[in-house]
Amino acid sequence: MLAEQGLSHLIQSLNVLYLLIGAVMILGMHAGFAFLEAGTVRRKNQVNALVKIIVDASVATVAYFLIGYPIAHKVFLLKPAADYLPTQGLELVRFFFLLMFAACISAIVSGGVAERMKFKPYITAGFFLAGIVYPLFEALIWGERFSPEFQSWVKHNFGAPIHDFAGSMVVHALGGIIALPAILLLGPRMGRYVEGKSRPIPISNIPLLALGSWILIIGWFGFNVMSSQNIETISGLVAVNSLMATAGGIIGGTLFGKNDPGFIHNGALAGLVAICAGSDIVNPVGAFVIGLVAAWIFVKAFVYEQEKLKIDDVLGVVPLHGLNGLWGGIAAGIFGQKFLWGVGGVSLLSQIFGALLTTVYGLSAGYILYGTLKAIFGLRLSEEEEFQGSDLSIHHITAYPEERIKF
Amino acid sequence: MLAEQGLSHLIQSLNVLYLLIGAVMILGMHAGFAFLEAGTVRRKNQVNALVKIIVDASVATVAYFLIGYPIAHKVFLLKPAADYLPTQGLELVRFFFLLMFAACISAIVSGGVAERMKFKPYITAGFFLAGIVYPLFEALIWGERFSPEFQSWVKHNFGAPIHDFAGSMVVHALGGIIALPAILLLGPRMGRYVEGKSRPIPISNIPLLALGSWILIIGWFGFNVMSSQNIETISGLVAVNSLMATAGGIIGGTLFGKNDPGFIHNGALAGLVAICAGSDIVNPVGAFVIGLVAAWIFVKAFVYEQEKLKIDDVLGVVPLHGLNGLWGGIAAGIFGQKFLWGVGGVSLLSQIFGALLTTVYGLSAGYILYGTLKAIFGLRLSEEEEFQGSDLSIHHITAYPEERIKF
Amino acid sequence: MLAEQGLSHLIQSLNVLYLLIGAVMILGMHAGFAFLEAGTVRRKNQVNALVKIIVDASVATVAYFLIGYPIAHKVFLLKPAADYLPTQGLELVRFFFLLMFAACISAIVSGGVAERMKFKPYITAGFFLAGIVYPLFEALIWGERFSPEFQSWVKHNFGAPIHDFAGSMVVHALGGIIALPAILLLGPRMGRYVEGKSRPIPISNIPLLALGSWILIIGWFGFNVMSSQNIETISGLVAVNSLMATAGGIIGGTLFGKNDPGFIHNGALAGLVAICAGSDIVNPVGAFVIGLVAAWIFVKAFVYEQEKLKIDDVLGVVPLHGLNGLWGGIAAGIFGQKFLWGVGGVSLLSQIFGALLTTVYGLSAGYILYGTLKAIFGLRLSEEEEFQGSDLSIHHITAYPEERIKF
Repeated sequence: MLAEQGLSHLIQSLNVLYLLIGAVMILGMHAGFAFLEAGTVRRKNQVNALVKIIVDASVATVAYFLIGYPIAHKVFLLKPAADYLPTQGLELVRFFFLLMFAACISAIVSGGVAERMKFKPYITAGFFLAGIVYPLFEALIWGERFSPEFQSWVKHNFGAPIHDFAGSMVVHALGGIIALPAILLLGPRMGRYVEGKSRPIPISNIPLLALGSWILIIGWFGFNVMSSQNIETISGLVAVNSLMATAGGIIGGTLFGKNDPGFIHNGALAGLVAICAGSDIVNPVGAFVIGLVAAWIFVKAFVYEQEKLKIDDVLGVVPLHGLNGLWGGIAAGIFGQKFLWGVGGVSLLSQIFGALLTTVYGLSAGYILYGTLKAIFGLRLSEEEEFQGSDLSIHHITAYPEERIKF
Repeated sequence: MLAEQGLSHLIQSLNVLYLLIGAVMILGMHAGFAFLEAGTVRRKNQVNALVKIIVDASVATVAYFLIGYPIAHKVFLLKPAADYLPTQGLELVRFFFLLMFAACISAIVSGGVAERMKFKPYITAGFFLAGIVYPLFEALIWGERFSPEFQSWVKHNFGAPIHDFAGSMVVHALGGIIALPAILLLGPRMGRYVEGKSRPIPISNIPLLALGSWILIIGWFGFNVMSSQNIETISGLVAVNSLMATAGGIIGGTLFGKNDPGFIHNGALAGLVAICAGSDIVNPVGAFVIGLVAAWIFVKAFVYEQEKLKIDDVLGVVPLHGLNGLWGGIAAGIFGQKFLWGVGGVSLLSQIFGALLTTVYGLSAGYILYGTLKAIFGLRLSEEEEFQGSDLSIHHITAYPEERIKF
Repeated sequence: MLAEQGLSHLIQSLNVLYLLIGAVMILGMHAGFAFLEAGTVRRKNQVNALVKIIVDASVATVAYFLIGYPIAHKVFLLKPAADYLPTQGLELVRFFFLLMFAACISAIVSGGVAERMKFKPYITAGFFLAGIVYPLFEALIWGERFSPEFQSWVKHNFGAPIHDFAGSMVVHALGGIIALPAILLLGPRMGRYVEGKSRPIPISNIPLLALGSWILIIGWFGFNVMSSQNIETISGLVAVNSLMATAGGIIGGTLFGKNDPGFIHNGALAGLVAICAGSDIVNPVGAFVIGLVAAWIFVKAFVYEQEKLKIDDVLGVVPLHGLNGLWGGIAAGIFGQKFLWGVGGVSLLSQIFGALLTTVYGLSAGYILYGTLKAIFGLRLSEEEEFQGSDLSIHHITAYPEERIKF
């Protein structure tokens, strides 16, 4: 009896620790987003990349605390500190953990709209993304608000609930798809397409890009594993599937991207985006294939988007997070099947429906949000500001103030 | 019975793990101190910044193992390895965890005295800071030596013991205040103030600064959460208060610092310094306000210190750690009150007394220590060495040896 | 009864978490290897350094999953996902954890052969290292396959089994020794030795090198502590010995390396390499001495190797991992003895035998593997490719594409 009481208190303590480790690892991923972008943009926009992500995460904290979490999970967090003590603040760390997902949406968009967007509308969008846009969708798939009814409706019609263990669709595809209207409403950077011809703009710093990628890879194990949200449901399968998809993505990036460091380091992320949804139900070999295909999708779609469609998506977030998020959702419906050594209990139809739903919701939300902000503030820096770089024009400093020589 | 034995062994194992995670996270913070300073100083002093911090941490390890921990916690660590096995080395990880706090003192001072101090007196000071100066103060507030009597005396006179959960005062204010005499005894860098006019020296590398800040932010969750020192007393409130103060600090840095990346990335740290003391008792909204105010204090006091008082505190450690540490101690006495949705059990008077005590002790200790070292070794590089940069003059190499061109 | 079942399930969950934390920390170490090498090579080879390590780790994942783990641990991992669920995928995270050791071998070699080796043979070697060479040796010392018989033979003949708690010999010495034939078969970089005279090639970026070192230091606590592989056998002694050896290595690097940042940051690693073997049985003071001596060995042997023997081991991996790995194995046989306050149960003779065995196996395996690859593919870039840099010649891009000016 005493032992049982002791055990149940210990498990509660461990759940706080478990969610905290996950939350802090994903908080770290935001540093990853920041350095990935800083390394990919030109030197004159590195500061802006770093600042956007860290300020974003803070604004998202406020928005999700006050509005987003109550929307999705039906729990208001404004109450005296003492009320949290009996459960050791478990609800609060759950908020922290889920907030970190919410904050990813704007961090994903950031990479697409880099080097030319105004700061204020960018940050304002971040507030609404974490406060309303994401939580509504989260409420539908995962949350306590609409999810129970909606998922049982999906199950009834398509054979199983939409399965998205760690957010291939709910987080990554949504973020990547929301970015598309933002990118189109902004238009390409000056000089990116001249008289209909593509003129790729060289990136600045591959070690910084690699640093960002590595930080994201490491943090992603918190993103995926701790998505079980309970220490007693931790699964080594999730961890190793994440690893196998990363390996598949890196090897795919090497092969399809012809040894290019950008494709290799982003290939890892492509694999990780795609494995989120099914990491708890696919086989490690399936996970490897999912990652390999994700790298192929990223390489091909990135080139097609930039060169054929002439969409100036600086970090390639639409293919990286958008398309690969959708691929991950669908792949869970394929490789999760028992005959492919998956755990089963998933329906390909439901997954395709989920992917369509994410696409429609993301495109609509993105157009409404960034369209409104464009009408109110304007989205784009002036030509002079863009030429000067967002570092000087927004932050009044360059990334390397001591330098005389500019590159 | 068996289950109870099993449970108690498991809890011991988990406490080792818990303290270890905290200790390693704070060890990581020392990398953060190193990169924050390396990014803020000129290129000719980056190596010195990196070396100071890593050597410091090692010297502190020796000093605190042999002298400091026994002073503060009444436990000698020099005994056969086998003696540690029955408790799985729990005492040793506790030493590791608390050492990481002790090692912060010199790392904080480092940022203030950068670019002009000799290596040997700097490292010697680090030995005494971690071996004697900090442990004596730790013994008073937290430790097993003087704390029981002293804190009950404080409680008797001011209504409650001094409350400093994770070291706003004991660690940060102490470090930041000790730095002041060191900075004054050294004097400003050559060319910083010319004929009474302030001539700001441009910093070198904002991505490095941002990297340092992010590493510190992430590690700080170990600093604060694991300060409970026992898995069964882990509190999600501490974690989320730390997060909210970070968000407040970043948003404050953005608003009060006019989008400046230095103020934004240091704003996060200002918030974290200030939340340490009360993170276990204030409300998340209170934590946000504490962080916001901390950023305001940092921005205003930094400018005042540098431009009006003409104190050349390179990284602004006196306002960042010193003033915000004091603010954090006092804020715990305000926002910890029940009527502000805090947990209560804290006295504003005790907190103010604690802040005064920290100030007096820090100033005295700093003057005695650095004054003595100045008399014995001299503190400052020669003009030629300073001009050449501490990298070449102390370490015989620059940060980028392959480069021909110097910035 | 209920409590006991609950407890045993909780312990299983915690073991998954424990091994996962270790695995992810060592995965992070691969980022450390990447940045350490990127900072040490010239700018024209930084991309290649980063790519080699990340692709390596992925290829090792495939090789160890399919071949290496079954060789060493007698468990095939190709089975349906559902089969892993009853034990929460514990076997899979054990694979993940042990894979991270296997993947170190090629990452260690990488630093020795930097700036002049072809990509394909390098990666091919990585496959065989993680798939066959390392697992065979692992099977002998640690694994389920040959170890039980072999270690009881060693015990019978030399008084105790070979003691190598976290791989001073099995991982580091093996990797560092395998690197030697690879380095000799390749020959020195163009311009490194001209007409018999040594002409040191300046390294590129000390902050990157320091970043790599710090990441390795932090991750190493997972490498060592989680080597107990079970939460209930966690030992704070292992953690603090790792810390003390790091401190010894840093202080040694400072003293013997005359304040050189390369020796200081690598001194930390030297200490950590050397403490792996005995971290569970030596006294913290012994650990400090082991680290101090390791730094001395590294500094002296590095200079001797480069200047007298004229071996162009770019990162000094033969002294750093090879010699210090052997030193660590032998040191466990000295400082592990009870009369030196160690835990005992270790035989110096067995340790020396282990060191000899590692040396013979490593040299043979290295010559056969890289010799065969040289015969088939050739190991070395053409003169023109080497001159141009491996970044442009292999990856068709430089590390800083935006720059016009090359250093």
